Amino acid sequence: MTAVEKMTNSALGWEVLAEEGEARAGVLRTRRGRIETPVFMPVGTLGTVKGVRFEALESELDARIILANTYHLWLRPGPETVRACGGLHRFTGWPRALLTDSGGFQVWSLGHLRKLREEGVEFRSHVDGRACFLSPEVSMEVQAALGSDIVMAFDECAPGEAAREQARVSMELTARWARRSRARFDELQREGADAGRLAPTTEGDGREAAGSFARHASEGEDDDNAAASSLLGDAHLLSGEQALFGIVQGATHLDLRRESLERTVEVGFDGYAIGGLSVGEEKPLMYEVVEAVAPLMPRDRPRYLMGVGTPEDLLECVARGVDMFDCVLPTRNGRNGQAYTSRGRLNIRNARWAADPRPLDEECPCAVCRRHSRAYLRHLHATGEMLAAILLTHHNLAFFLDTMRRVRQAIRSGQFTRFRREFIGKLDSGAG
Amino acid sequence: MTAVEKMTNSALGWEVLAEEGEARAGVLRTRRGRIETPVFMPVGTLGTVKGVRFEALESELDARIILANTYHLWLRPGPETVRACGGLHRFTGWPRALLTDSGGFQVWSLGHLRKLREEGVEFRSHVDGRACFLSPEVSMEVQAALGSDIVMAFDECAPGEAAREQARVSMELTARWARRSRARFDELQREGADAGRLAPTTEGDGREAAGSFARHASEGEDDDNAAASSLLGDAHLLSGEQALFGIVQGATHLDLRRESLERTVEVGFDGYAIGGLSVGEEKPLMYEVVEAVAPLMPRDRPRYLMGVGTPEDLLECVARGVDMFDCVLPTRNGRNGQAYTSRGRLNIRNARWAADPRPLDEECPCAVCRRHSRAYLRHLHATGEMLAAILLTHHNLAFFLDTMRRVRQAIRSGQFTRFRREFIGKLDSGAG
Repeated sequence: MTAVEKMTNSALGWEVLAEEGEARAGVLRTRRGRIETPVFMPVGTLGTVKGVRFEALESELDARIILANTYHLWLRPGPETVRACGGLHRFTGWPRALLTDSGGFQVWSLGHLRKLREEGVEFRSHVDGRACFLSPEVSMEVQAALGSDIVMAFDECAPGEAAREQARVSMELTARWARRSRARFDELQREGADAGRLAPTTEGDGREAAGSFARHASEGEDDDNAAASSLLGDAHLLSGEQALFGIVQGATHLDLRRESLERTVEVGFDGYAIGGLSVGEEKPLMYEVVEAVAPLMPRDRPRYLMGVGTPEDLLECVARGVDMFDCVLPTRNGRNGQAYTSRGRLNIRNARWAADPRPLDEECPCAVCRRHSRAYLRHLHATGEMLAAILLTHHNLAFFLDTMRRVRQAIRSGQFTRFRREFIGKLDSGAG
Repeated sequence: MTAVEKMTNSALGWEVLAEEGEARAGVLRTRRGRIETPVFMPVGTLGTVKGVRFEALESELDARIILANTYHLWLRPGPETVRACGGLHRFTGWPRALLTDSGGFQVWSLGHLRKLREEGVEFRSHVDGRACFLSPEVSMEVQAALGSDIVMAFDECAPGEAAREQARVSMELTARWARRSRARFDELQREGADAGRLAPTTEGDGREAAGSFARHASEGEDDDNAAASSLLGDAHLLSGEQALFGIVQGATHLDLRRESLERTVEVGFDGYAIGGLSVGEEKPLMYEVVEAVAPLMPRDRPRYLMGVGTPEDLLECVARGVDMFDCVLPTRNGRNGQAYTSRGRLNIRNARWAADPRPLDEECPCAVCRRHSRAYLRHLHATGEMLAAILLTHHNLAFFLDTMRRVRQAIRSGQFTRFRREFIGKLDSGAG
């Protein structure tokens, strides 16, 4: 609890309230509410945290911010539709903060037949094989139309095991794209401000705007630039005030990571993310990169580790200075019958739970653990009932969010080191 | 509001509070709460109303009673498991009233290679093809182990278009099975009472009891009787106080229906159901049967029309004297993208909703209609998101249960005739 860092701009406020070692407890302020950090952001890929009603996210889980995927929403329902419906908050009915990623990671992990150029990346949609083109400019335009509270710069993600030369090329491209992201983002914000932050119309005809987001690559090779510099129409008018985060790349090469960080900070962002981790590399290597990079990231800006991780990962990376996390693990594994508990993971398929009256986690205060037995949850999973996925997802998110609440309390009361040791020790004790 | 009929026994209380024509508003009292009628019972086949958390059923939808299927629960997880977990209420975490059907209808609609005998019915499980045997005795034993508040007699369901002779044979078998159901049910209740309604143990080893419910038909032909008269072990000790309903069959032959009713009443039950309707016959024929049978059913007992129906069906059959309904339509159609609204059915797949900001039903006060647009729901359905099924099911149940609430108010205030006319007129006006 020594240094108190403060940052405010029109879209985002940030304050560090307490520190313990590298761990920080802080608060992010957005126009859609206050978010205490360290924070775990549930993933709402297509504008829905799979299997969870927004009422539960708000009242029971108290999630203050969720993530949505630009790539997925760009393909379906498309930014024209989201715009016609008044932006992603109004479209989905989620009134709290939203962070959108840039689409770069999904192009890398889901796109087919990718062709990477300086201008951007051409690929085929995983949904229907259509030719698509994504660039820093298009990503900024789509995220402006979505109207998320935190926008991510468009980056290129090298494989976890990328050799130095490949990782350097990728990192340098990411640095150039960061500048272009910043420039286009700033234009869009200015245009939005000049237009007086017009209220979105929900009566507009979405079809008129079709194609203005350059979702489809042009037929001719020479048209790439035209596609990349496509105009947004007036979709950016929905954007309101957004914050922009830059992304540090460089695979597992620490010198490249440091260089990437310097070049990203040089551009200047409202927050900084570590990308390109948890993509297959060994866990100690991931911790090493975070340990080397996070403490060098600006103290007066929030630090976001993308796509990480397990409960243990969260604690280990909080200890190394990270403030924000997102991951599909609690939701995806919930759908697959995996529960996270204070004593480690539990596979609900296991026959030993067939008549077990105990909750998933005897120490968990969530609604699922208060009402339902392992026996019932196993039965639901075994019979293919939707409620299995719904309840396991709910419990997992409750466990992740509650863990982060306890992490915040621990840091603020100077007990984080002990909390971390005890929490991780208990994870190994087994959920049997 | 003339006659006031009253019935009480140790398991069930019944009172008619108001009448308008044949329509009745009443109240059922069970040891797990008070149920105002006419009532719609959501279907919870495998111990879960598909896609709906119990918190929503209780707090938001205020469902007072749900139905579970004996056949399905008998196959999975099996009555041994439910018994080991303390009965269906404790197993599922649902504290309110439960009605279980007898399994007869599912054997008829789902079982393969059925062999019907006087003793019971042999068939192959739709889950794994195993040989199974179900009889009045086994059905009573399983329902005792489940511990439902209302137990249904084991009946034989003739096809909707059954010719007179086939329907007569089936009806007569049902009448003999009604006697056997009653006898075994009474034994089980007495044994439960003698045993002091022992609290169920949740520590027991479910495996010991395996096989005691005769789920599997014996290999040899001669063993049928042995299987049918299988002992229950001590599973019935869980049953507590249960009520038993008889079922009137006879397909669409009114004289057979009347005879079936007489013979069923002769046996004597806590309530009476009309079975074997909504199985493919024309709608006017269904209304004709209900109109001919319901008013003849004992006035001092609740009347239950099984497996019916659409919102229009509910009103038409309330008008003909029915008090209780169950149907998969709101849940199954919700999963298939069909919404019930005050202006008729709405298919959420329709491209015309792509950017439509309106709720499913502008007059509906449910949480889904308060928060979400047709555009968002269409997007969820189009992208295969679970939340589509969750939200449409929630809305549909809200619409059905709210409609029944309005039906009860209308009867109690003598406005039902007008309400029915206006409600049905509006259904035809279109949800566009």
